[in-house]
Amino acid sequence: MIYFQSDYTEGACEEIIRRLTQTNMEQTTGYGEDAYCRHAASMIKEACGNEELHVHFLVGGTQTNTTVITAALRGYQGVLCADTGHINVHETGAIEACGHKVLALPSVDGKITARQIQEAHEAHVTNESFEHMVQPGMVYISHPTEFGTLYTKEELQAISNTCRECGLYLFLDGARLGYGLAAGDTDVTLADIAALTDVFYIGGTKVGALFGEAVVIRNEELNRDFRYYMKQKGGMLAKGRLLGLQFETLFTDDLYFKLSKHADDLADKLRAGVKACGLTLFAPGRTNQVFVTIPNEILIQLSEKFTFSHERPVGDDAYVVRFCTSFATKEENVEELIQELHRLTKK
Amino acid sequence: MIYFQSDYTEGACEEIIRRLTQTNMEQTTGYGEDAYCRHAASMIKEACGNEELHVHFLVGGTQTNTTVITAALRGYQGVLCADTGHINVHETGAIEACGHKVLALPSVDGKITARQIQEAHEAHVTNESFEHMVQPGMVYISHPTEFGTLYTKEELQAISNTCRECGLYLFLDGARLGYGLAAGDTDVTLADIAALTDVFYIGGTKVGALFGEAVVIRNEELNRDFRYYMKQKGGMLAKGRLLGLQFETLFTDDLYFKLSKHADDLADKLRAGVKACGLTLFAPGRTNQVFVTIPNEILIQLSEKFTFSHERPVGDDAYVVRFCTSFATKEENVEELIQELHRLTKK
Amino acid sequence: MIYFQSDYTEGACEEIIRRLTQTNMEQTTGYGEDAYCRHAASMIKEACGNEELHVHFLVGGTQTNTTVITAALRGYQGVLCADTGHINVHETGAIEACGHKVLALPSVDGKITARQIQEAHEAHVTNESFEHMVQPGMVYISHPTEFGTLYTKEELQAISNTCRECGLYLFLDGARLGYGLAAGDTDVTLADIAALTDVFYIGGTKVGALFGEAVVIRNEELNRDFRYYMKQKGGMLAKGRLLGLQFETLFTDDLYFKLSKHADDLADKLRAGVKACGLTLFAPGRTNQVFVTIPNEILIQLSEKFTFSHERPVGDDAYVVRFCTSFATKEENVEELIQELHRLTKK
Amino acid sequence: MIYFQSDYTEGACEEIIRRLTQTNMEQTTGYGEDAYCRHAASMIKEACGNEELHVHFLVGGTQTNTTVITAALRGYQGVLCADTGHINVHETGAIEACGHKVLALPSVDGKITARQIQEAHEAHVTNESFEHMVQPGMVYISHPTEFGTLYTKEELQAISNTCRECGLYLFLDGARLGYGLAAGDTDVTLADIAALTDVFYIGGTKVGALFGEAVVIRNEELNRDFRYYMKQKGGMLAKGRLLGLQFETLFTDDLYFKLSKHADDLADKLRAGVKACGLTLFAPGRTNQVFVTIPNEILIQLSEKFTFSHERPVGDDAYVVRFCTSFATKEENVEELIQELHRLTKK
Repeated sequence: MIYFQSDYTEGACEEIIRRLTQTNMEQTTGYGEDAYCRHAASMIKEACGNEELHVHFLVGGTQTNTTVITAALRGYQGVLCADTGHINVHETGAIEACGHKVLALPSVDGKITARQIQEAHEAHVTNESFEHMVQPGMVYISHPTEFGTLYTKEELQAISNTCRECGLYLFLDGARLGYGLAAGDTDVTLADIAALTDVFYIGGTKVGALFGEAVVIRNEELNRDFRYYMKQKGGMLAKGRLLGLQFETLFTDDLYFKLSKHADDLADKLRAGVKACGLTLFAPGRTNQVFVTIPNEILIQLSEKFTFSHERPVGDDAYVVRFCTSFATKEENVEELIQELHRLTKK
Repeated sequence: MIYFQSDYTEGACEEIIRRLTQTNMEQTTGYGEDAYCRHAASMIKEACGNEELHVHFLVGGTQTNTTVITAALRGYQGVLCADTGHINVHETGAIEACGHKVLALPSVDGKITARQIQEAHEAHVTNESFEHMVQPGMVYISHPTEFGTLYTKEELQAISNTCRECGLYLFLDGARLGYGLAAGDTDVTLADIAALTDVFYIGGTKVGALFGEAVVIRNEELNRDFRYYMKQKGGMLAKGRLLGLQFETLFTDDLYFKLSKHADDLADKLRAGVKACGLTLFAPGRTNQVFVTIPNEILIQLSEKFTFSHERPVGDDAYVVRFCTSFATKEENVEELIQELHRLTKK
Repeated sequence: MIYFQSDYTEGACEEIIRRLTQTNMEQTTGYGEDAYCRHAASMIKEACGNEELHVHFLVGGTQTNTTVITAALRGYQGVLCADTGHINVHETGAIEACGHKVLALPSVDGKITARQIQEAHEAHVTNESFEHMVQPGMVYISHPTEFGTLYTKEELQAISNTCRECGLYLFLDGARLGYGLAAGDTDVTLADIAALTDVFYIGGTKVGALFGEAVVIRNEELNRDFRYYMKQKGGMLAKGRLLGLQFETLFTDDLYFKLSKHADDLADKLRAGVKACGLTLFAPGRTNQVFVTIPNEILIQLSEKFTFSHERPVGDDAYVVRFCTSFATKEENVEELIQELHRLTKK
Repeated sequence: MIYFQSDYTEGACEEIIRRLTQTNMEQTTGYGEDAYCRHAASMIKEACGNEELHVHFLVGGTQTNTTVITAALRGYQGVLCADTGHINVHETGAIEACGHKVLALPSVDGKITARQIQEAHEAHVTNESFEHMVQPGMVYISHPTEFGTLYTKEELQAISNTCRECGLYLFLDGARLGYGLAAGDTDVTLADIAALTDVFYIGGTKVGALFGEAVVIRNEELNRDFRYYMKQKGGMLAKGRLLGLQFETLFTDDLYFKLSKHADDLADKLRAGVKACGLTLFAPGRTNQVFVTIPNEILIQLSEKFTFSHERPVGDDAYVVRFCTSFATKEENVEELIQELHRLTKK
């Protein structure tokens, strides 16, 4: 069986494994207060082009989202996001379990617009029952989104401006950030994201690390006592240096970007193969996630050799499925998948 | 200024005021453990036709919703409701502040269907990521709804059946229940509601009491330690007998139904007047809430003499507004409103 | 049976009943935005000697405590209070249900000291694991306390100074405030409390109202969007004018103080009677709560004619019990209680 | 600098590093549903002597405590524990942030007794205001405790019996369980713990793993939908097999016990050295934590070469400090510490 169901089916890139092995018996203090974490934070700040940023390391995405959003919002505030957003759909209500409503905005491709945010803000402040409604306090976007789509720099700039005008924090979930930054069709850089958001994170778990997310905070108010929230939400790893070591490795010699580019290139190859078979891509975008609408009879046969995730039915006869590439994807496996798609679609 | 903006613009019906005055200096124990509360509970159980029910008295609607829903759900469960539902829109995220996601279902008239519930349940249990999603645990409906619409007995029966098949609690918000039971076009009785739901409440605040909601629990599991939740959520009134006294009064000589019918009849009169003016009613239903689409230029003039609530814009030129009648509404005021609508629409 | 078990065994003082009756059919807007609430707020600000204060009306004590504390604290902060404090013992964990730890300080008489607060603050900030511990964010005191004791002005001043130095909000629970202000042995005025705390409340439920607590906020930061919290916590009464009307009445002609003094005077009389019987008062203080240690064999007989509350066992043979007086207590009932105590203790 | 401040100053034991490296490029499904997790669970069930148990893998201790306790308690329930318990002191209020009060019982050595539990239960059910108080729903104990002390089998049996009689869940925090099971003075086995508790966990983070805690659930009710809670609380690791692989390794050839014994033996050696210097051990117990009361002037010099944690001041002149050994502790470092203590205490 060849796995394309996600970008976390293997362990970590070899550089990380090697580094963890090398440093294994060193002694350090815990909870992220060691020299490796400090160094990794410093490398990330440099890569973001801003020494004034604050960097914290957490283990996984749900944990990161609850910690950041809890730190940002007052009790009666909610977070605006696409209805398809991870926090709205795939975290078992973790944000609500922390007391906050997710204010879903309609989206077809996983993205939301500055105008939607503006309208939601205005609808709230002009409502005669405003105190009886959840006040928007933050905007959550993903880049890439759940559908692998990317914001342009102009779109991000517009969202950022709107957030500042409306007094909303802007939070970018970068669980797959590397794949977005390395995509063939983006004009957005890491420095852009650091400058335009109040807080974002650089995903490690899905981009070649064993685990780990690096939270980058630009807004001082959000950074206040952030580590208390990390501890309370279960996100302060005892052997915190494991996170520092991994991000240090990822930010050495552009490894984070190289790993991402490897995955994006193979995804491009798969997309080309899919089109050549006459199958339809569900969403645009050149990151590591490939969404394809596939007839059910083909799916059954395909799943004998490959794993992938089922996203949504299309009528009664087809499904949108997702294939993911990653740092670990082998070119021959992508080729084998393309051949199989050819074989099955030709019948 | 004549108020039609809500059904809680006056105090209480005179019978309640009289009763509170009469009993004012009596001594009783607190927290709802007095003889008046016991008697009122007993009257309600009789009116519902089931001596096995449990009755608790709370002060207001938001409090009641949070207490009931918290008592019902496990931490990872959410509550299905119409997107226009009170808990989804008008309680400042009180349910989420208790940790639970409100799972909104699309609705045009405030109602949801057994089929929608069934589909939401199936979508959850068949999803390959089901553990990553909020599990539906309860269905919340309002009767009448936010738009004054009513479920038929057949619809309620279907929803009830579906809930039992899917293992979902059924909770009916009866903040305006009296107006629903007294409506000219309903086939649903109090006993039906008591039999078809797991828990519901009989609204007092909006139906002639100073305040108060009577929670009626049929499902034993939901009743377990319910008073602990009442206390924790701030809903256990120290002078609890005030609630017992009011519901005792409302359930003496069918007063609750008579007060409701008075309001519904005047609303019917208003609806007839509105139609005669050529204005459009926004939603069907013969309860005490009258929703009318009115051009903006008329609204401005109308608001010089009458208050009403603005529900939603209709394009740029009109608004759906709501007029409420209540136990306290005077027929001459309704007539004056109709006349004014005539005058303004004729210009 | 004569009730001394609490100060909420009757309805309201006659002035309030009369006022509610008089105004019953008037029409007002809801949710505390009516003229009665505005007027009552204005009277309270005047009585506090500070026009800059903010006043909000809530229904009951638990609700008020959760609303104020939630509005004050960040997620990782807790509230310091006496181990006997109401929020620590008698609210079914309502504060924890809102996410905050109650940080209990040992107390024998219900009071805590500036030094205890100072030490708790320093213990936190100097701990090497401070981020792993709950950060004190607020101090909660009751005046009178659970044991009817009162802070002196000097003590309050010291606590206030310490709170400001340590960056802690000071919140005074005044559920029985009137009895404290009217006590024969206090040097603390309403204006003192308004000046020395960040937020406090003036209890109505236990001091002659049907229900109601007036929250007075001096600290602007605490007042920010306070009404959203009120709504979310279920504390925004639909017919809000009922609260305004009651506090308007209580603050007319010093009624609040007169009612309190009536109760305190009768409690003084009872205390004198208790001492004359050779029984021991459990706590000092001249408010409406009388705590007496009474042998069990007397208690059984006493409870045939009188109700009172059992506070705590004293060894195997006696109990500290509490007798409360209130606006409604009749002098002859106090005399009857004293006579009965005489009779039983003489045997 | 030589680190004795905790048992998580190094990475993992070499067997784990080797295993993670070997399997790194294998493809598996995520979220703990892979074959490694299944195998590790199976090994743990076998080691516990009960095939009916349920095993789940989480990343860290705070996360595990919040997940288990949330899954166990109803909203108005709290968890009984020693006042020194980790959840009461060192998790930044994580349990309260999930809505539950920690009901602290006094303890001098980190342990609580069956009698204390019994009394707390009875005090609740016999209180006339029981519904106004948090209901105990679970007992949390640590083994070893925060002070390295251990329950005897008899004590555990008594606690277990009491919990069953009182309807309380029994939860044992085994963050350092290995050190307890390997201690020279214990009569408690893993199978005993599995039989006597409703749920417990086997700590990996502090016992030779990179991270990871294995939750073992005996009580079926607690296991219901447990994985939803894991996801919601941020504890479901994407690359879940990392946890399975580590516990598989730890439970191969008794490695978990061998690593623990290594640490306990060195701690015994240190304890002997400490006594020989005339210093006082603070708590009994033969696990990997050594608590010593040391005069301040010695501490300053000691901290030039060694790290350790400061537990609590003893008067103005001394401190109780903690030295931890672990799988990674070298005998020569312990010897060097003993020599230094000798040198400093002889001056």
